Amino acid sequence: MIAAWIDGGKVRVRDDLPRPVLEPGEALIRVSIAGVCGTDLELLRGYRDFSGIPGHEFVGRVAEGPPEWVGARVVSEINVTCRSRRAGPLCLSCANGRPTHCLQRETIGIHRRDGAFAEWLRAPVANLHRVPQSLPDEAAVFAEPVAAACRVLRQIESEMECDRMTRALVVGAGRLGQLVARVLAIRLPGLEVAGRSERNLARARAAGLAAGPVAAVEEAAYDLVVECSGASAGFAAARRAVRPRGTIVLKSTHKNELPVDTSSIVVDEIRLLGSRCGPFEDALSALRRGDFEVRDLIDERLPLSAAPEAFGRAAEEGVAKVLLVP
Amino acid sequence: MIAAWIDGGKVRVRDDLPRPVLEPGEALIRVSIAGVCGTDLELLRGYRDFSGIPGHEFVGRVAEGPPEWVGARVVSEINVTCRSRRAGPLCLSCANGRPTHCLQRETIGIHRRDGAFAEWLRAPVANLHRVPQSLPDEAAVFAEPVAAACRVLRQIESEMECDRMTRALVVGAGRLGQLVARVLAIRLPGLEVAGRSERNLARARAAGLAAGPVAAVEEAAYDLVVECSGASAGFAAARRAVRPRGTIVLKSTHKNELPVDTSSIVVDEIRLLGSRCGPFEDALSALRRGDFEVRDLIDERLPLSAAPEAFGRAAEEGVAKVLLVP
Repeated sequence: MIAAWIDGGKVRVRDDLPRPVLEPGEALIRVSIAGVCGTDLELLRGYRDFSGIPGHEFVGRVAEGPPEWVGARVVSEINVTCRSRRAGPLCLSCANGRPTHCLQRETIGIHRRDGAFAEWLRAPVANLHRVPQSLPDEAAVFAEPVAAACRVLRQIESEMECDRMTRALVVGAGRLGQLVARVLAIRLPGLEVAGRSERNLARARAAGLAAGPVAAVEEAAYDLVVECSGASAGFAAARRAVRPRGTIVLKSTHKNELPVDTSSIVVDEIRLLGSRCGPFEDALSALRRGDFEVRDLIDERLPLSAAPEAFGRAAEEGVAKVLLVP
Repeated sequence: MIAAWIDGGKVRVRDDLPRPVLEPGEALIRVSIAGVCGTDLELLRGYRDFSGIPGHEFVGRVAEGPPEWVGARVVSEINVTCRSRRAGPLCLSCANGRPTHCLQRETIGIHRRDGAFAEWLRAPVANLHRVPQSLPDEAAVFAEPVAAACRVLRQIESEMECDRMTRALVVGAGRLGQLVARVLAIRLPGLEVAGRSERNLARARAAGLAAGPVAAVEEAAYDLVVECSGASAGFAAARRAVRPRGTIVLKSTHKNELPVDTSSIVVDEIRLLGSRCGPFEDALSALRRGDFEVRDLIDERLPLSAAPEAFGRAAEEGVAKVLLVP
């Protein structure tokens, strides 16, 4: 089959790859469309030392697997865990209800497991979610990053804080920041977005969000700041924007360490919260209800054979989502 | 009067300083004893660009001020805020109930205000707390760092988490780590301490705590880790020790930035909580009740005229509290 292939910091297209061979409990999925994410670009820079087929945002149709799943249009959670494998004893994380932190996990297209920039991929049936009929593929393909955005809401809601968060800011108006802002704005209506690209800021405004340049952000003013830029300048801006005893949610993964003034974190009693994968149920519900638009974020649809160009386009400033169509 | 004086990275003794001149609402305090803290050593390294009289842990007696305070044995909160000044409009932090984060604050012996390594100092009456009669000076002098330790408890209790924190670790068995561990162990009886100095580890064990070397700490195992070492190796150890979705409380201030692998904070969804000054009421109550011993932490009493030696002693490995007696 044809697939994109990352190796040694380069992405290329291969046509010599076999179809995945299923393990017990897995389904074979024909990929309909897949989305390029910032993490894919970081994999190219060496993040997680990944080599293989990238891609973890996709929608597809089950071709092989348990009869009740064959033919289903699905999206998939990306962490393949003790629980999803359903064999052997559970690790400490899975046993304690933190399956996304499974100590033995593989992550589709990111860590120790091939991904969705391919004609076919395999995934445990336990990871699959049926896509509601009313939801077109080009919205459903956003399920994974919208779930990641919903995770932020779960984290702050679980501490019953939304009502106290009168000023909230998302730093980064790219593909991730846009989704995080749209999800959070439902609960935090005064939410603001700060970004670098005028195109993305305009996109945020068109979606009804208050959006402006990073340089104009008020200092020490926000109860909650979500860092979605993945850039060290973005982290610095988030740190400046948050008020004493405020919360910074870190959403972006990237290869390099950041120099952090931990003393100022102590002095201002800042709370930093790492935030990764989220609940697909919340994401699919929000997308089905049409709580916010996502298709305005699609800037390009390219065939799988143009994967290197897709990566290049996705890395351009002001470009949000690039889709790959096998 | 005689006082210790920090300037240009050196500490010396001066005998040419005038007694402090009171501002409205302040009391003049005759210092009985003062304690050297890790932050004092950091001031020498350039932290906060401080020059003047250091010292923020002390017990003393009011010599001048409102009649109801004259003669009282007192300790003092160290942040001089809009509220403690009681003049002019409140800043945003003070108006929002975060006086320790006052945007116009001075901090006794740390920032823009002389401290307690002196015969006399001034402090706003609003900052003072009377020392219970049963509490000797050599326990009361720990009120400020014990309050800082109590702050950790307030932070995790306020999120109703103690019951879920079955494994807790304090990294750093020095003067701050010892107090934090003793305070936390009341609510978290299985708490462990990891340190470098065998002498301090023995001291922790004598206080009834489980204590061992940093190298022996189990990885990804602790629900809560409190970093009290102030060293980048300590931060790294804390990061290794915490489990996915666990909490690291940062307690130490120091001059340098630390390189932080923020992606791993994202991936493991770690929560980092900065923690600084705490409630004196809690500290004085705990000390009065004798919830834990503190006087075993006193390694040395030196006259104020030996302040440079006191700083030197306090910087030695295995030395906990050094007291200065004017």
